[in-house]
Amino acid sequence: MTTLQLSDYQIHVGDFWPTFTDFLNEKKYTHILVLVDEHTEGACLDRFRSRFPEKMHTIRIPSGEVHKTIDTCQKIWLDMFAARADRRSALICLGGGVIGDMGGLAASTFKRGMDFIQMPTTLLSQVDSSIGGKLGIDFAAVKNSIGVFANPKAVFISSEFLETLSPREVRSGFAEIIKHALIADAEQWADLSKIDDLTTVDWDKIIVPSLKVKQHVVEIDPFERGLRKALNFGHTIGHAVESMALETDNPLTHGEAIAIGMICEAYLSKILRGLPEADFEEITQFILKIYDKYDIQQFDSQKLIALMRQDKKNDGNEINFTFLPKIGEVAVNCTATPQYIIESLAFYSQLS
Amino acid sequence: MTTLQLSDYQIHVGDFWPTFTDFLNEKKYTHILVLVDEHTEGACLDRFRSRFPEKMHTIRIPSGEVHKTIDTCQKIWLDMFAARADRRSALICLGGGVIGDMGGLAASTFKRGMDFIQMPTTLLSQVDSSIGGKLGIDFAAVKNSIGVFANPKAVFISSEFLETLSPREVRSGFAEIIKHALIADAEQWADLSKIDDLTTVDWDKIIVPSLKVKQHVVEIDPFERGLRKALNFGHTIGHAVESMALETDNPLTHGEAIAIGMICEAYLSKILRGLPEADFEEITQFILKIYDKYDIQQFDSQKLIALMRQDKKNDGNEINFTFLPKIGEVAVNCTATPQYIIESLAFYSQLS
Repeated sequence: MTTLQLSDYQIHVGDFWPTFTDFLNEKKYTHILVLVDEHTEGACLDRFRSRFPEKMHTIRIPSGEVHKTIDTCQKIWLDMFAARADRRSALICLGGGVIGDMGGLAASTFKRGMDFIQMPTTLLSQVDSSIGGKLGIDFAAVKNSIGVFANPKAVFISSEFLETLSPREVRSGFAEIIKHALIADAEQWADLSKIDDLTTVDWDKIIVPSLKVKQHVVEIDPFERGLRKALNFGHTIGHAVESMALETDNPLTHGEAIAIGMICEAYLSKILRGLPEADFEEITQFILKIYDKYDIQQFDSQKLIALMRQDKKNDGNEINFTFLPKIGEVAVNCTATPQYIIESLAFYSQLS
Repeated sequence: MTTLQLSDYQIHVGDFWPTFTDFLNEKKYTHILVLVDEHTEGACLDRFRSRFPEKMHTIRIPSGEVHKTIDTCQKIWLDMFAARADRRSALICLGGGVIGDMGGLAASTFKRGMDFIQMPTTLLSQVDSSIGGKLGIDFAAVKNSIGVFANPKAVFISSEFLETLSPREVRSGFAEIIKHALIADAEQWADLSKIDDLTTVDWDKIIVPSLKVKQHVVEIDPFERGLRKALNFGHTIGHAVESMALETDNPLTHGEAIAIGMICEAYLSKILRGLPEADFEEITQFILKIYDKYDIQQFDSQKLIALMRQDKKNDGNEINFTFLPKIGEVAVNCTATPQYIIESLAFYSQLS
């Protein structure tokens, strides 16, 4: 097991069960609650209970982003009252990003704050949303528009939960691992780029350096005022593609869309920020090895650009990008004209 | 104008308008929103607009504790979206405790946090809820059960808003001023106890030392782990009396109930914590001079004690009190048996 020390909590990666038990014994919580959805209640909660059979109260919510709402949050609060939870109780969020974001928010606001513990079960939440303190729900059709910044008391990450995922879900999380290496860790990129098959990867080993990148960024800029935009690489175009794919019969996972976004934004980095041709080739070839090509020519490029303009990271009328001057380095607050953006989309489309 | 410096914000008391204008000019908020209810929209918003005619967006909610709910909070969030507010906008809470507590919560959670500014318009909110960072709404029939701790960017207090209050509302806020003096400021108590008529008081002068007491307490114990219980003097019995009075045709204001609670808990302080007889007499006589006697013999004392047992400040089965060893000193985590509590209620009832 590896432990990362953040400003006010620790992340434990690997076989964390003895540490987890010690942690709870030391905390002496009045009540322990565990939040699951119908997916994690099966596979993950059984594993959890077999390792930690102590008395606790289970709160169940329906799975999926569509339920990341104030109504579900109210259901969690009511269940907390029913379990007689108080400020000295704790909520364990056992699931993916929705469970972690919404469970963390519900706990942070229950009686003005009870502890919560992240136990992310998807690769995406393990390397991304479980660290950084961004909690929230969707409101008024805007993603994560209501929430708070608050840190968990601890994060426990184990690859054993990844066995419960489909290969496609693993690929989705892997895109953020690629991104972390590209923006800040050329050494990890060298290791990653040798991977041919995601089913044989030792995830506990890969996750640690990836988390360190995100740790570094969020500790310098916890409230998203500057450097944190580094994490946006691949996301300006990726988010727009993800939104439009969502309207089709063949939607993309978050990571699949970010993979497309990273190729297009690497292309823009090459043209506008001097990313070396060799780095650009490496990035493109590796992403194509892991991710199937997707038809983005079906999308109206003006609509894609209109979506990019709506991004809350923009300042004024310009579209905000994070570019790579080279692998392992990042430049925030870049911009590109619609013409260049369209050129990058066309570049992706002609790849084979 | 007097300015109090807290850890991360300032409280301005008196003629604050030039300071308020400078503050907003310096902050360069993208949008300024002001939250009012039907009471403060009339008297207070007109005064506000006459002093500060800049462009801003008004959000209106219905007045009263009954509307301090997640539904009203959602209405505030929707109005914030409609006003195109973002993280660099600010909400001014112009009203009493409900406006301040709920507006602060709505702002703290909108897009994970926009600034809010307290401009309390009742004496109670000026000396009590506007300082201390406790924000919240009522949920599942429990007062303030959902919320966060978060500080405003500034608090602006002026006695000119008190002109909009009824004498009864002024008396309600005055009880917390009495409490602050009794627990920590014998000097202010000496000044207060000379007051015969609340209509001739220079409130800006009285409010400052009262705020300093609360400032001291909340800075030492922001998350209510210990010393903050000092503020509970008069509230164990006061809250129970307030709850039962609420069910009658003749309900009490918060301050009227706390005034009764302070007499009863001063009685207990005399018997159980050595409050000198002279101090006890002073307290009782002064409170009776300001507040009319109320018939508490109509209440079943067992029901009152059952209500006291439900208080979230209790530990185990004991009823938690804050007592006065003498005027200006406080002892937290005290307890009293039901027999003594009943005796203190009987003492109040025989007063004339």
